[in-house]
Amino acid sequence: MKRKIRMGMVGGGQGAFIGEVHRIAARMDGYIELVCGAFSSNPRKSKAAGKALFLDPKRVYKNYEEMMTKESQLPADERMDFVSIVTPNHVHFQPAKLALEHGFHVVCDKPVTFTLKQAEELKKLTSKKRKLFAVTHNYTGYPMVKEAKAMIAAGAIGKIRRAVVEYPQGWLSTRLEASGQKQATWRTDPKKSGKAGCMGDIGTHAENLLEYVTGLKIKKLCADLNTFVKGRALDDDGAILLELEQKAKAILFASQIAVGEENNIRLRVYGEKGGLDWSQQEPNTLLVRWLDKPAEIRRTGVGVQHSTTQHAIRIPAGHPEGFLEAFANIYKNFALALNDINEKNKPNPLHLDFPTIKDGVRGMRFIDKVIESGKSKVKWTRF
Amino acid sequence: MKRKIRMGMVGGGQGAFIGEVHRIAARMDGYIELVCGAFSSNPRKSKAAGKALFLDPKRVYKNYEEMMTKESQLPADERMDFVSIVTPNHVHFQPAKLALEHGFHVVCDKPVTFTLKQAEELKKLTSKKRKLFAVTHNYTGYPMVKEAKAMIAAGAIGKIRRAVVEYPQGWLSTRLEASGQKQATWRTDPKKSGKAGCMGDIGTHAENLLEYVTGLKIKKLCADLNTFVKGRALDDDGAILLELEQKAKAILFASQIAVGEENNIRLRVYGEKGGLDWSQQEPNTLLVRWLDKPAEIRRTGVGVQHSTTQHAIRIPAGHPEGFLEAFANIYKNFALALNDINEKNKPNPLHLDFPTIKDGVRGMRFIDKVIESGKSKVKWTRF
Amino acid sequence: MKRKIRMGMVGGGQGAFIGEVHRIAARMDGYIELVCGAFSSNPRKSKAAGKALFLDPKRVYKNYEEMMTKESQLPADERMDFVSIVTPNHVHFQPAKLALEHGFHVVCDKPVTFTLKQAEELKKLTSKKRKLFAVTHNYTGYPMVKEAKAMIAAGAIGKIRRAVVEYPQGWLSTRLEASGQKQATWRTDPKKSGKAGCMGDIGTHAENLLEYVTGLKIKKLCADLNTFVKGRALDDDGAILLELEQKAKAILFASQIAVGEENNIRLRVYGEKGGLDWSQQEPNTLLVRWLDKPAEIRRTGVGVQHSTTQHAIRIPAGHPEGFLEAFANIYKNFALALNDINEKNKPNPLHLDFPTIKDGVRGMRFIDKVIESGKSKVKWTRF
Amino acid sequence: MKRKIRMGMVGGGQGAFIGEVHRIAARMDGYIELVCGAFSSNPRKSKAAGKALFLDPKRVYKNYEEMMTKESQLPADERMDFVSIVTPNHVHFQPAKLALEHGFHVVCDKPVTFTLKQAEELKKLTSKKRKLFAVTHNYTGYPMVKEAKAMIAAGAIGKIRRAVVEYPQGWLSTRLEASGQKQATWRTDPKKSGKAGCMGDIGTHAENLLEYVTGLKIKKLCADLNTFVKGRALDDDGAILLELEQKAKAILFASQIAVGEENNIRLRVYGEKGGLDWSQQEPNTLLVRWLDKPAEIRRTGVGVQHSTTQHAIRIPAGHPEGFLEAFANIYKNFALALNDINEKNKPNPLHLDFPTIKDGVRGMRFIDKVIESGKSKVKWTRF
Repeated sequence: MKRKIRMGMVGGGQGAFIGEVHRIAARMDGYIELVCGAFSSNPRKSKAAGKALFLDPKRVYKNYEEMMTKESQLPADERMDFVSIVTPNHVHFQPAKLALEHGFHVVCDKPVTFTLKQAEELKKLTSKKRKLFAVTHNYTGYPMVKEAKAMIAAGAIGKIRRAVVEYPQGWLSTRLEASGQKQATWRTDPKKSGKAGCMGDIGTHAENLLEYVTGLKIKKLCADLNTFVKGRALDDDGAILLELEQKAKAILFASQIAVGEENNIRLRVYGEKGGLDWSQQEPNTLLVRWLDKPAEIRRTGVGVQHSTTQHAIRIPAGHPEGFLEAFANIYKNFALALNDINEKNKPNPLHLDFPTIKDGVRGMRFIDKVIESGKSKVKWTRF
Repeated sequence: MKRKIRMGMVGGGQGAFIGEVHRIAARMDGYIELVCGAFSSNPRKSKAAGKALFLDPKRVYKNYEEMMTKESQLPADERMDFVSIVTPNHVHFQPAKLALEHGFHVVCDKPVTFTLKQAEELKKLTSKKRKLFAVTHNYTGYPMVKEAKAMIAAGAIGKIRRAVVEYPQGWLSTRLEASGQKQATWRTDPKKSGKAGCMGDIGTHAENLLEYVTGLKIKKLCADLNTFVKGRALDDDGAILLELEQKAKAILFASQIAVGEENNIRLRVYGEKGGLDWSQQEPNTLLVRWLDKPAEIRRTGVGVQHSTTQHAIRIPAGHPEGFLEAFANIYKNFALALNDINEKNKPNPLHLDFPTIKDGVRGMRFIDKVIESGKSKVKWTRF
Repeated sequence: MKRKIRMGMVGGGQGAFIGEVHRIAARMDGYIELVCGAFSSNPRKSKAAGKALFLDPKRVYKNYEEMMTKESQLPADERMDFVSIVTPNHVHFQPAKLALEHGFHVVCDKPVTFTLKQAEELKKLTSKKRKLFAVTHNYTGYPMVKEAKAMIAAGAIGKIRRAVVEYPQGWLSTRLEASGQKQATWRTDPKKSGKAGCMGDIGTHAENLLEYVTGLKIKKLCADLNTFVKGRALDDDGAILLELEQKAKAILFASQIAVGEENNIRLRVYGEKGGLDWSQQEPNTLLVRWLDKPAEIRRTGVGVQHSTTQHAIRIPAGHPEGFLEAFANIYKNFALALNDINEKNKPNPLHLDFPTIKDGVRGMRFIDKVIESGKSKVKWTRF
Repeated sequence: MKRKIRMGMVGGGQGAFIGEVHRIAARMDGYIELVCGAFSSNPRKSKAAGKALFLDPKRVYKNYEEMMTKESQLPADERMDFVSIVTPNHVHFQPAKLALEHGFHVVCDKPVTFTLKQAEELKKLTSKKRKLFAVTHNYTGYPMVKEAKAMIAAGAIGKIRRAVVEYPQGWLSTRLEASGQKQATWRTDPKKSGKAGCMGDIGTHAENLLEYVTGLKIKKLCADLNTFVKGRALDDDGAILLELEQKAKAILFASQIAVGEENNIRLRVYGEKGGLDWSQQEPNTLLVRWLDKPAEIRRTGVGVQHSTTQHAIRIPAGHPEGFLEAFANIYKNFALALNDINEKNKPNPLHLDFPTIKDGVRGMRFIDKVIESGKSKVKWTRF
């Protein structure tokens, strides 16, 4: 790599949660440099955030429109390479579209847009502009998730029959949004969050993890959505039966009223010959069960067999890596792939192992279909 | 207790799995004495089994009809008090009916009968004859399951919103029945097992555990049943969405093709104030999660607060008790309740804490409704 | 087996903890029948206990001396085969000696005597009288402990280098004996417990488990004993460095002031090729670590390879067995070995898999040496 | 913070393991900028490493002597603030001394020097020069380790009686150094590693963790050191009995031949009222046991009560943080404290929560005393 990749940021001002997560992830491997930002819709707040990040004040912008225009006028060896969008859901589409139109690559938080239609438009535009577009479905960044995917792709557990993916949280068990808590407020507001609450916020993560690891697409589903907390406009819990390709079956459970649960996203996949069990609670472990021999504990420290997994590990020998490292694996691969492009190389397939706008579109379709099925009296809704 | 309770057994000859489990359970606390049996439909095998159990050869019968007749002719201070039925499903109803008609109490394995109608008939007969009828839904015998039930009944976790009960097994991942393995053969045979395979064999346990602990009845359900192993006649896997009383929602997952899983029955219940998590893998632990304080590890050794739980523990201070002790808790309470009756006392409510024919009827209805819903194109089937 | 083995009991009256554990263990497999007892030094209490156990009042004795005399005068097909001694430590030697002298086999709780000399005397007498003498070091009764022993004996993990055995409890963290609590009172009283407190009560279990599984004897040790609770006469905590045969090294840690710990006995053994890890917390699991492949989870349900282990399992397929089943494995094997003798057969080696008076002697020597080392200023004390 | 803190690095060229760990840790929070380095004793390798890190070639030095001289001649607003030393043990002292003499602050890997005398010299020099000197005993950087320390300091578990700290690894179970593996080679070479092998490499981490969390200093110890792998010059395993201040007792176990263990550093502390249990395997959990109520699972997501802990957490709500985040907490606090100094403020006590040269000296004394005790025939060696 001859130079660092240059990042601009939309959103992520002071007090934001996910913005700093993106920045830590972008910093971790030293491949990316934050060069500019429009950190808030409030220009003063944007300036303050930029200062705290030691940015050149000239490159801290009033809004993302200004950022796109001004950055695109800078010399090629100075202007940002890509923009990272870390705003609430309803402010994803416009800056992403503008970025692509101005020739910038994009990293965007999930769900990728407010509506499915917007996502499809971005997908077309990305393709037309020949840009990279990453969506931060970060759970697929964990090394042992990649190992699970690689094992399945290699046929280690045979044809898949049954999967169970779950993401229980408890933080919305009470009407937290009534207190004005920032994260709760926009996530439960249909104008900012979109059609779905829990299913958009964490259900899409579960959906992405399921499809990523199994390599199978959802074909139809049957959703039971609930709003348990009185006065809340969107779903805060749901259970879904799914049929995947190849007649595999799955359960997807996501809840934000599962009292006391933190972020216990877990995936189990059972094939004809073996079963895999991964949980974020101890993310460096992949439990592998077999038909007629003892279960194995594969760890980042021992038992990793696939190159995509090795590529995702920073510390050997079983020192635990966590959420931030998994998140950073998206940025790392995104930067490496951008560098391949900068250096006129065909991107290394290892570098392209990050969720893209295609995953973003599937996530939006998932939200649409879950809501449709939730209202339907018919058992199965085609995906 | 002035004398031991006298037990006769139907089924459980040599090579049977569950028969010896029942006998160990009946022996454990020293309240029950096996006095007679019709251990096999083959009289020679029945005799051999009786001999190995040190029984008086005169009380080892050719068949259960003979046993009922002859035992009922013995003097009151000699004849059996109750019969324990441990045959395959299709041989539950007749001996149970005959036992009741001859004035004997009954313990019967689950599912309690072959058809719902039979179960309802037994329920009426039990009531008419004023007998005790226990069904060995043994998982409710675990002390920490009882603690969970008692906590919920006392309002500790508030109004219930969401439950997840699962029972994954892997032993039928291949077509084991083709090898002639005894347990697999009858369980996958519609003529012996009944309408359902996996859902009858272990789904009913999950259903019973769910209703026992939550205290809520199933109101409607949406089932997705599968037969993954080719050539198998009955379901070997299924996922069910449920609505319980008080608008609580649940997921029930049972599978016999979850490769590598042993008997990982687990129940999670989330209320408005707290959540409970119990798993047979470490049955002496009940994980209790709270809205805003650390999760607690309640153990048989420390943290038990309810008398039904204390009554179900044999060894204090955290020595692990297991499956057999839980199973024995049904026999123990059954014997203690019978003794209460023998001694003309009103049964102590602690002693009546075992699953009865009412649970048996619900199990049979569950099977009926799951099969009905599995075939239905409509989302919800009323229970 | 032509008849049940007949057991008499010394101690274990109402309110006793370990007496009922022994009785459950003796009952579990149906091989043993309790026929007589001297349950208390108080004849009235002995009678009451016998009545509650449905014994023939004629065979409930005033004291053990009477029991030995009277039972030995009964016809051979009626009198007890063996005596089970479940009194506090200082009342083990006399009844055991008397039993052997009257021709009875013996099961005795641990530590086997009050002094090492007594234990050696019993060993000689047992040998001279050609009787069976089991000592209830019950933790070696767990199936997966037997699997660990068998794996090591078969060379699966190579030459042993390092072991760590620990038994933390917390129940004596305060001066419980001051409250008159029965279990605490005699265990902390040098006149009843012997030279050692914690090390005699649970340290000997750890020592027995270590030697049983590794197959290596202790050669020398270096003990640091502590009495943390003021006013207590005996040790309530201790840590010991050990050298075993073949220059293997070990740590033994036992404590009764490890607040909040229940009975977390755990053993780890590391050889040149692999490592084993067993813990009573989840006793049906044996974790097996390897030099360069993933760790394995061997379970009673899957992965058991040795006949001694299979012989110790009652329920297949991963239903958890617990403390009582492990305890019962001593009684089961003892009864089967007695039956071999009764039937004039050479005892099956599988049946002789229980701790004997030899283990009892080693336990007493352990106590002696630990106390000696604890007082010594020299690092190593020869065993 | 007005500007980033500027770091120079000694060691950490391509192929090094720990150098990149330090860089990731330094990068993570965006407070530190790598500005210069002498990455290898081979100037060409140093240049190559600097280039890969996008450094100004002028500030990639041939050796650390040149770096100290040239950097100290740069203008104050340009030259490095501190040096990070990530070389093998025998190359810690000289660059650290030189750095201090040239007025630079220091971060140094552990053990801090080759001999105790060198460490004491650095301690004096640090004090004389009034510089910050951090030693990367990184395990104390974990949030829940800080919570444990804070709980003990606040008296939550009462007076400490017993601690057990262990650090089993298995990677040196065979003679890996014979293969030329870089990490193994220098660590087992007395000329590079120092007096101790295992005890210097990981024993010192265990010692530091023990003293940090308990707040108690070691007073005396009794060590049993072993070299299990033939042909190895230094210890590869050891067990130590310790007495801490206030008559507390501890066991320290460290091994590099514990086959199959990764980096299972774990600490348990038992006080008069409660017990704490932390393990790197799941570092975001602190198990808290109590005298007479259920154990609690305190998590970074819920149950944290102390400001030092909160300050060490980057992502709320239970997303797992790992080894790199813990490591980065040393750099983060070091940078914040440097910034306090730069801005002429008294350093915030929260910022001074990192291991210093004092910890480094204790680590070197630990090595000396462990070796002394290992050779002694007397039980206790004063610390």
